[in-house]
Amino acid sequence: MSGDSAGRRCDGEVMTAGRLAAELGLALVGADVPLSRVAPLHAADASCLSFLVDRRYRPRLADTRAGAVILRQADADAAPCTVLVADNPELAFAKAAAMLHPRPRPPAGVHPTAVVDDSASIDPTASIGPLCVLEAGVRVAAGVEIGPHCSIGAGTSIGAETRLVAKVTICAGAVIGARVLLHPGSVIGREGFGFARDGERWVRIPQVGGVRLGDDVEIGANSTVDRGAIEDTIIADGVKIDNLVQIGHNVSIGENTAMAACSGISGSTRIGARCTVAGAVGMAGHLHIADDVHFTGMAMVTRSQSEAGVYSSGIPAMPNAEWRRTIGRLRRLESLQQRVQQLERALAEPETGGAQPPAD
Amino acid sequence: MSGDSAGRRCDGEVMTAGRLAAELGLALVGADVPLSRVAPLHAADASCLSFLVDRRYRPRLADTRAGAVILRQADADAAPCTVLVADNPELAFAKAAAMLHPRPRPPAGVHPTAVVDDSASIDPTASIGPLCVLEAGVRVAAGVEIGPHCSIGAGTSIGAETRLVAKVTICAGAVIGARVLLHPGSVIGREGFGFARDGERWVRIPQVGGVRLGDDVEIGANSTVDRGAIEDTIIADGVKIDNLVQIGHNVSIGENTAMAACSGISGSTRIGARCTVAGAVGMAGHLHIADDVHFTGMAMVTRSQSEAGVYSSGIPAMPNAEWRRTIGRLRRLESLQQRVQQLERALAEPETGGAQPPAD
Amino acid sequence: MSGDSAGRRCDGEVMTAGRLAAELGLALVGADVPLSRVAPLHAADASCLSFLVDRRYRPRLADTRAGAVILRQADADAAPCTVLVADNPELAFAKAAAMLHPRPRPPAGVHPTAVVDDSASIDPTASIGPLCVLEAGVRVAAGVEIGPHCSIGAGTSIGAETRLVAKVTICAGAVIGARVLLHPGSVIGREGFGFARDGERWVRIPQVGGVRLGDDVEIGANSTVDRGAIEDTIIADGVKIDNLVQIGHNVSIGENTAMAACSGISGSTRIGARCTVAGAVGMAGHLHIADDVHFTGMAMVTRSQSEAGVYSSGIPAMPNAEWRRTIGRLRRLESLQQRVQQLERALAEPETGGAQPPAD
Repeated sequence: MSGDSAGRRCDGEVMTAGRLAAELGLALVGADVPLSRVAPLHAADASCLSFLVDRRYRPRLADTRAGAVILRQADADAAPCTVLVADNPELAFAKAAAMLHPRPRPPAGVHPTAVVDDSASIDPTASIGPLCVLEAGVRVAAGVEIGPHCSIGAGTSIGAETRLVAKVTICAGAVIGARVLLHPGSVIGREGFGFARDGERWVRIPQVGGVRLGDDVEIGANSTVDRGAIEDTIIADGVKIDNLVQIGHNVSIGENTAMAACSGISGSTRIGARCTVAGAVGMAGHLHIADDVHFTGMAMVTRSQSEAGVYSSGIPAMPNAEWRRTIGRLRRLESLQQRVQQLERALAEPETGGAQPPAD
Repeated sequence: MSGDSAGRRCDGEVMTAGRLAAELGLALVGADVPLSRVAPLHAADASCLSFLVDRRYRPRLADTRAGAVILRQADADAAPCTVLVADNPELAFAKAAAMLHPRPRPPAGVHPTAVVDDSASIDPTASIGPLCVLEAGVRVAAGVEIGPHCSIGAGTSIGAETRLVAKVTICAGAVIGARVLLHPGSVIGREGFGFARDGERWVRIPQVGGVRLGDDVEIGANSTVDRGAIEDTIIADGVKIDNLVQIGHNVSIGENTAMAACSGISGSTRIGARCTVAGAVGMAGHLHIADDVHFTGMAMVTRSQSEAGVYSSGIPAMPNAEWRRTIGRLRRLESLQQRVQQLERALAEPETGGAQPPAD
Repeated sequence: MSGDSAGRRCDGEVMTAGRLAAELGLALVGADVPLSRVAPLHAADASCLSFLVDRRYRPRLADTRAGAVILRQADADAAPCTVLVADNPELAFAKAAAMLHPRPRPPAGVHPTAVVDDSASIDPTASIGPLCVLEAGVRVAAGVEIGPHCSIGAGTSIGAETRLVAKVTICAGAVIGARVLLHPGSVIGREGFGFARDGERWVRIPQVGGVRLGDDVEIGANSTVDRGAIEDTIIADGVKIDNLVQIGHNVSIGENTAMAACSGISGSTRIGARCTVAGAVGMAGHLHIADDVHFTGMAMVTRSQSEAGVYSSGIPAMPNAEWRRTIGRLRRLESLQQRVQQLERALAEPETGGAQPPAD
């Protein structure tokens, strides 16, 4: 319940390359071999399905002992085994792996150690794990899986087939879509960081907005999504968020945007659809980021971006001695600029330039 | 219990603009309308209290359908409804919102599923939620609320009216003040990151110091505050810390300092009072930061700061191509400096300069 | 159970300087005084053991009231009390502190509120705390301590003397070594951030790899270690990881590498042995970092490093006005370069240079 299946074998009926090809609509070239698990090219045996996505690994193809490989038509000639030809081999592999490694589902019903308020409404096909707490008025739809130690605040609704892996905290009144995946330790709907000043003291501003997660959203382990201050925090359908990410109050994130680990989005920033945010990116508050904007790792986002494109910042790590010199030179840039200005004056007025003080 | 109230209406007796004005000491201009909830200017209806703090939203005032608005005297003329005049409208709104949206309090007493050591001392007005663990000698003062899945280590004391929302971990011997708010997943008093070297191996140095949180402190979701190595980690009264923040061992933070999400403070750094630390700031260890110092987002703090003021670092994100050129130029700064030096020599000694090698 | 001992005194039989010296193989100079706890030089009394590691604190030595001090031979003359002479005083102090402050161990056995699958195998000397969940096939070795609210996924094995402090989540099939220390809120073996694109949508790639933690590994509070996508994520013996650190899928970290808080390592990056990674460092994916590489705080690691050494990046925080000027100059570096080029041309061909357009 607290994790995915680590079983490397597909129990029950035998999967074969042919059956995978049929189910996924791929062309099969070669024998219809039985397959029991996935493995990378270099570690596969005859019972394994492998794949070639990144062309840099093509040299490994000739030596693989895999039973079958998913790859593009252009690579089919180089394979020593059964081939499943896919236009998008990564996607085909994702689907095939899910078929070879079906996740065991916990039994439906409420574990006897769970603490569930009488007014909660739980679909009989849902599974509520041990030691969970579901408060008043919680609604849990069909096929939901809630792992151990989750707590669901009053009035929250959880859509069909959604899965809370373990130790997820959902605060009161959250609206969670269907097929959402919430990883261990994630906290949805905390009262955000909003204060008024009273002289030197901070006085909390009640955070009365809500939080809404669309369908097919994923929130990583120990990530936090704050509820809205007065309107809602909104995570649209298909958004994928990695571990240890902070989403501030009143943020909205557009459909199918993906955000890697350790990033933080300050309050009221609006991010468009289909964006990608690499790891450890920081965004200031109240920004508007257009659709199809991509930030590279550790970018420091201080302005709105209305144009699609790739944005970056930061200085890549270098040997410490070189870095120290670089920082020193950066600090002396003003004087360098003044020296250039003085040279320009000296060239323009050769008779006085050399003695003239910098005026930049 | 695991969150705040998402109920948008004030139950029980009717709140009115006049009653709010009287309780908060504000001037009332207009009719004494009944109010049931707060809303922003553009989304309010006649039952709503709204507010105008940021002057940029003043154009929205004329069109609001709010029943009443809290604002400054200078904006009073522009409101189409009842007005509550405040010198500090944000503070007045914070207090009014708390009156309109009172948080439901859980019932006093210990939930039957909580595991509480016989030697723990719990005030009868305190509420201990389901599935909590309170170890030996824990002391819980009046009015404390402890939500589900919290664990409180042996000998910890928790001051009056403090609230642990859910899944808070407090390690042994912590001292927590009054009216403290600990958000879900926060970890207080972990044994910090202290090791001695034994050849290539690291040997843990027992962390025997404590951790003390003053009154009115707030620690965000999944934030971590390590106990001291040999003396205490100290968070003074009124300090507000956001989500996913790390506070290392032996750090001390002065009164009413506020720290936004994703920041990390290394061990033994001392931060003064009334500082603000924006998101994703990193501080090295053993620094001394004066009172009233402000760091902007993602600042990299490597030196002590003895002067109040605003400090910054980092390169704001720019289009990727421009960033690549900028980094390239930064790497060539040394050669640019040499070229300028050579030009200076050439101008000073025109007959030899052009052929002279750079000597910088 | 949910923390370390905050007790500052050693119960039971009396510890003395002489006994410590004998057990640790140190030279004793002075009287064999009784000792009950550790304290820093300036706060110690006659019952305290103190230490001098950092030579900057040597002036405090003369005034200490400690009963005994651990220090190097070179500092022995300056101590007003009993001295324990050590080649590595920090290591000797770590061991002495552990003797003076033994951590109370919870009783062996399974707490009646823990939910343990019948097929789990638990050594009778292990301690399983209240409200834990152990799924099918979990194996727990001798002397293991599992604090409250931990959940252990199916098929996980946990080596001897390992300690899960509280609220640790281990997903299915993890392999945890001996003497490992997992701090509160850590999440081991989450399904990592791997997706294939299906048009605009992201489709999860099943993460069927495992996660292996060697002996003597430590993972900080609320840190996350993802399982492998198809092969394993591997944390070698002796690795120490601080709070709020993210380790992506298929990362491998070599022996005795240490990593400070708030760092993030992207998927498939391989880090060597004996590296140190300071706080808030970010590493891109698929890098190879050699043994004995050291990154300073907030370094942005975008390339593999095949050479041992110290690497750095980032701009240290400076007064905001200076920072604004620096960023402005950085943006004008291209024009500065062009001006220098124009000056060079002007000097080379004085008759045409002044009017020539920049061509850089």
